[in-house]
Amino acid sequence: MEKVKLKLLYSDLRPELEMIEKELEVAVGSNSLLLNEASLHLLQAGGKRIRPVFVLLAGKFGNYRADVMKQVAVPLELIHMASLVHDDVIDDSEMRRGQTTVKAQWNNSVAMYTGDFILARALEYITVIEDSKIHDILSTTMIEVCRGEIIQIEDKYKLDQTIRDYLRRIKRKTALLISSSCELGATVSGTDAETAARLRRFGYFIGMSFQITDDILDFTSSDEELGKPAGSDFIQGNITLPVLLARQDPKIYSHLRNAVGKEMSDGERMEIVKMIRNSSALQQAKAISEQYLDKALKELDHLPKGPANKTMRKIAMFIGKRKF
Amino acid sequence: MEKVKLKLLYSDLRPELEMIEKELEVAVGSNSLLLNEASLHLLQAGGKRIRPVFVLLAGKFGNYRADVMKQVAVPLELIHMASLVHDDVIDDSEMRRGQTTVKAQWNNSVAMYTGDFILARALEYITVIEDSKIHDILSTTMIEVCRGEIIQIEDKYKLDQTIRDYLRRIKRKTALLISSSCELGATVSGTDAETAARLRRFGYFIGMSFQITDDILDFTSSDEELGKPAGSDFIQGNITLPVLLARQDPKIYSHLRNAVGKEMSDGERMEIVKMIRNSSALQQAKAISEQYLDKALKELDHLPKGPANKTMRKIAMFIGKRKF
Repeated sequence: MEKVKLKLLYSDLRPELEMIEKELEVAVGSNSLLLNEASLHLLQAGGKRIRPVFVLLAGKFGNYRADVMKQVAVPLELIHMASLVHDDVIDDSEMRRGQTTVKAQWNNSVAMYTGDFILARALEYITVIEDSKIHDILSTTMIEVCRGEIIQIEDKYKLDQTIRDYLRRIKRKTALLISSSCELGATVSGTDAETAARLRRFGYFIGMSFQITDDILDFTSSDEELGKPAGSDFIQGNITLPVLLARQDPKIYSHLRNAVGKEMSDGERMEIVKMIRNSSALQQAKAISEQYLDKALKELDHLPKGPANKTMRKIAMFIGKRKF
Repeated sequence: MEKVKLKLLYSDLRPELEMIEKELEVAVGSNSLLLNEASLHLLQAGGKRIRPVFVLLAGKFGNYRADVMKQVAVPLELIHMASLVHDDVIDDSEMRRGQTTVKAQWNNSVAMYTGDFILARALEYITVIEDSKIHDILSTTMIEVCRGEIIQIEDKYKLDQTIRDYLRRIKRKTALLISSSCELGATVSGTDAETAARLRRFGYFIGMSFQITDDILDFTSSDEELGKPAGSDFIQGNITLPVLLARQDPKIYSHLRNAVGKEMSDGERMEIVKMIRNSSALQQAKAISEQYLDKALKELDHLPKGPANKTMRKIAMFIGKRKF
């Protein structure tokens, strides 16, 4: 399992991550039965907790204090969780990480309000932070994540969008939250401004690489590995980098043009997945992902050496090479 | 028109309200065409801007500075707008205030993200406020509004809920945001703690009275006056005070029991509306609304006299007597 392997890379952080996990459980608790069930369902669906990990690792470059790190790690993960549950409404997703989504288990309204509630809880955590710079970063992040989702709606089913459109979208959707995690971890632990800026850029590059890899895996992995049908992105109208690169072949373009936005059988879906697999698009996308990865690693070269730097490098390499 | 008449009561505040209106327009602006259209649609649907009015009036009890007032009035109105657009998803509402809703004009996803975006913008305003007490009140308000909506989902179609359930729900749904508006207006203008607490209680009582009146009007007004079909609340599964009082008659109870949660023709809908109109429920509900109104007026009796006190009293009386 990918998740287990990735977790080995940051096993040193286990005590803090367990503390954060407990705090997340408390954070999503309420005296509403329905809300509790939906939030716990979402929490137990897990995820890699990669944002808290980056907060903690970035904090190691400064005056590391676990309880201070927690104050920003928890709201960042909550913002992420809230955006996932709202994404599932937009994408009409039944499955995520091999589990039914909140919108599938209950309905769109419950998913919407579970997201609202978790976002509100994130705010509650932000409130106790006195540093106005931290507030600024967190609320700007929240706003940009929301804007990213709007752009995602606007760009849906648009086969003729540019690669620049795609990059702009994943920047807001994924890279920004990871880059803020790194920047905030550094800032709350009082690193100098240059270190914080480098860590922010590292987070941005690694986030871009991570999302492109995710978008590749949607085509290369099996349904079982993904925990949802392969090719889901295209079916949901999310036009990702592999599609934008593959469409340069006129034959593939006309096939995609006929399929986009239409109901598809499993056979038709797999036909498209195979068409992308057999094109050169996945190799090209991988090369772009690796360019971002290289930039991320270069930032690490300029940061102080030590265990945190090493772990960040290992995670970066892992993300670059993961198979599913 | 009710809105016009109400506005006459606070015509002194027009310059500040126009400033707030312009600021709201800026606040919901973005470079996304879809989002801009949806947000402007929501903004232009208007509303009474009663929350900003209460912020301004409460501010008159202290050291009134229009620009400082604006800093809390704008996010409070944005929280309100965001909750309305999400409500429309939950209630599956096609019309509000005589206009099509965002979810009807576009779809549920757009409504959800328009709400998210507006909420994020509210945050942006909250961020620049340095006083941690203001932050606390604003974020607690946001959380409680969200919780109120969850409870609203849970209580839907439950004909056997208690009146206490109803009161708890409208407290969070309506009274809290108005009470916070009054408290924040007082706090940012530096009134003493007792004045702020009295204004908060005034806002709470007036908010309860206001929502009960709204729930009565859903049965007493015509479709044209409401700008949506009379009896909409019941059809959407929102069990309000008039229904809870009317169900005490076993004949009405069994009629409602058969109808709740079912598709209804216009004729069947009007049959229920008339049944409630002909019962004593509306008179009883009115009496309860008036009890809250009296409590609100008593708070004003203990506050310093002056034009702001007078205007608050006029608004309270207006709310207590409004016909639609």
